[in-house]
Amino acid sequence: MRDVAIIGVGMIPFGRRDEDTLVDMLAYASMHALDDAGLGDKGVDAVYVANMGGGILQHQTAIASALVDRLSLLPAAADTVENGPASGASAVKNGVLAVASGYYDTVLVAGGEKMREVTGWKATDFVATLTHPEVEYPYGITLPGMAGIFTRLYMEKYGLTREMLVAVAIKNQAMGALNPYAHVEMLITREGILDSPHSVVNNPAMADPLHLYDACPVSDGAAALILCPLEMAQELTKNVPILVAGFGQATDTHALQEREDPTDLKAVTLAAQQAFKRANLKPSDIDVAELHDAFTILEIAESEHVGFFKKGEGGKAVLAGKTKLGGQIPINVSGGLKARGHPVGGTGVAQLVELTWQLRHELPKERQVKNAKTGLSVNFGGFGNNVLCFILKRGGK
Amino acid sequence: MRDVAIIGVGMIPFGRRDEDTLVDMLAYASMHALDDAGLGDKGVDAVYVANMGGGILQHQTAIASALVDRLSLLPAAADTVENGPASGASAVKNGVLAVASGYYDTVLVAGGEKMREVTGWKATDFVATLTHPEVEYPYGITLPGMAGIFTRLYMEKYGLTREMLVAVAIKNQAMGALNPYAHVEMLITREGILDSPHSVVNNPAMADPLHLYDACPVSDGAAALILCPLEMAQELTKNVPILVAGFGQATDTHALQEREDPTDLKAVTLAAQQAFKRANLKPSDIDVAELHDAFTILEIAESEHVGFFKKGEGGKAVLAGKTKLGGQIPINVSGGLKARGHPVGGTGVAQLVELTWQLRHELPKERQVKNAKTGLSVNFGGFGNNVLCFILKRGGK
Repeated sequence: MRDVAIIGVGMIPFGRRDEDTLVDMLAYASMHALDDAGLGDKGVDAVYVANMGGGILQHQTAIASALVDRLSLLPAAADTVENGPASGASAVKNGVLAVASGYYDTVLVAGGEKMREVTGWKATDFVATLTHPEVEYPYGITLPGMAGIFTRLYMEKYGLTREMLVAVAIKNQAMGALNPYAHVEMLITREGILDSPHSVVNNPAMADPLHLYDACPVSDGAAALILCPLEMAQELTKNVPILVAGFGQATDTHALQEREDPTDLKAVTLAAQQAFKRANLKPSDIDVAELHDAFTILEIAESEHVGFFKKGEGGKAVLAGKTKLGGQIPINVSGGLKARGHPVGGTGVAQLVELTWQLRHELPKERQVKNAKTGLSVNFGGFGNNVLCFILKRGGK
Repeated sequence: MRDVAIIGVGMIPFGRRDEDTLVDMLAYASMHALDDAGLGDKGVDAVYVANMGGGILQHQTAIASALVDRLSLLPAAADTVENGPASGASAVKNGVLAVASGYYDTVLVAGGEKMREVTGWKATDFVATLTHPEVEYPYGITLPGMAGIFTRLYMEKYGLTREMLVAVAIKNQAMGALNPYAHVEMLITREGILDSPHSVVNNPAMADPLHLYDACPVSDGAAALILCPLEMAQELTKNVPILVAGFGQATDTHALQEREDPTDLKAVTLAAQQAFKRANLKPSDIDVAELHDAFTILEIAESEHVGFFKKGEGGKAVLAGKTKLGGQIPINVSGGLKARGHPVGGTGVAQLVELTWQLRHELPKERQVKNAKTGLSVNFGGFGNNVLCFILKRGGK
């Protein structure tokens, strides 16, 4: 297996992008990534698109074929990969395997979603198409509903508090305010969303015990990256190559209710274990992490399941500032899904774009993790039924 | 790169399957493939699902996660791959790369579609979601419309006749009548669809010069196969391993109208050239072929573009019986899309299942290509804007 490196990355600001089509967004992010790699007119051998909802939201299929033509990358091979909100990492995985196999040398992976085509309950319903088609979806359970149930169980089992959840929201929105690519740039305070008489109105219950500010926004957006064999990185680009040191992917029961212990996110644990094994690293070796905080609870739960903290300690760690920039393990310095936004097919790619910037030491001081050499991402599909974990490393082996 | 072999295959009869959900169909085909390989309780490392329309037709996403759970293959990695009507071959390609890379040893690829959820113009509209979203789809062009334009140009340039098209339909429906997996088992005659006073009623114009019997049916169906490294085939299964000797994939302009010569299917030519180069074979070495005859014209055009016949000679070859069982190069002995049916996500996988049966010499005499050692498939995405070609070889190298 050849070692694979990320040699170019690109993103467009997430948010509301009414003027752009889905293919526009994917194309803009891809052009940034191609430019960043310095590939210029060299093109790529293959293209992967990560997208969950083109069929439902845009009534459009064959998006990879549309993108490769739009970018004048013909006759490059082109496929679309779908894995719910983990579509991004799944597409990157297949790009990595394509390069590792020796079949393709240069691969573009672009992930994106035009979510705001629908609003309110329709957006929630769209995301719920990933739930179990027989025992969940027809009964009206939604992702916020599942997250609410999960949070309640976590509170009962581990003594998690609303205070801890709110701390994640405040931290990530504060970082989002510093990230020009973020959808949400508004600072929030503990008083505004938890304490004051207005907090009930400012931050209404969504799925008890979760409130509005525990959830990510509904975002349009796209991100892209370029992969090549590590051994070719130097001749292709001037950028510091970022090694895909390891990745893992695991599945769990499609329906949340079928899990022996619903608070145990087995697929997160397994995906992380596989990634650490491949990378020959352990959780304490990681300098910066992008975790899938579609809901505040998920950042806490994932930080425990990948091994940064013991079970039940993740919430306390947030309160103690251990996951802040400058803390023990900075998590979602980008603002995370909570503030950068969550265009579902784009998220897994955006996480790796952020980590690449971090490991190249290219971010402004107020967002840069000092001397970061290793980064980890978790892209959480379904409600933890299909999870990918990536570990990146600065400057090759 | 490791050599990759197909060690198990499975299919369910195509047609109208109102009782089955999409995941049911994928599961049944997968169980046949797992049984055929003799993997029993060993499970697989990764699963790929090929599906084009789950979002639009079933309002369902994350189908790979649903399938892997349904088959009790947890925690295997699972992704869905979409590439229009070539989704099947694209999923197999990614499965092959995953095994070739050394990352996964055993991979299940299942492709399927539940097309008959919608009927008539709605089915045609669903397929048209793969056309160019700006310059084609909004103007109402459909796949039959494109095929009609293409056929007219082919007639003008190469002297193709309706007689030749009808010969493809008669040949493939005759073979479909012998295939228990085929959707259409009805024999048709030249008189019934071309000559008699009733032929206009029996075989009405669809998109001039194409008529009803020039098109494949709208089918439900699924097919599956198991991949592993060639070097592990012997210890895993008793079946003759079928080597994936080569494959190719190429894209062309998304919009048909943007091609310099619309009768030139560049992506078919390129995909086939890549596959032949990898396999170190030439067109005359191929013993049996499965070509993507969604319309009769496509079987003829593809037979020329992959190199079986010179441009303009494919139609004559059909009339001369060269593409029949026992002829120079038997094409679509399965009945093809025309008779077996075309559940879009399933087709590319079904073609390779058929070729595996042929190369293992397991078919009944009336459908078996004698002593077949090499097989070729073309899975045609869009209207030739994203095409894959596979070459399989009996019994390893």
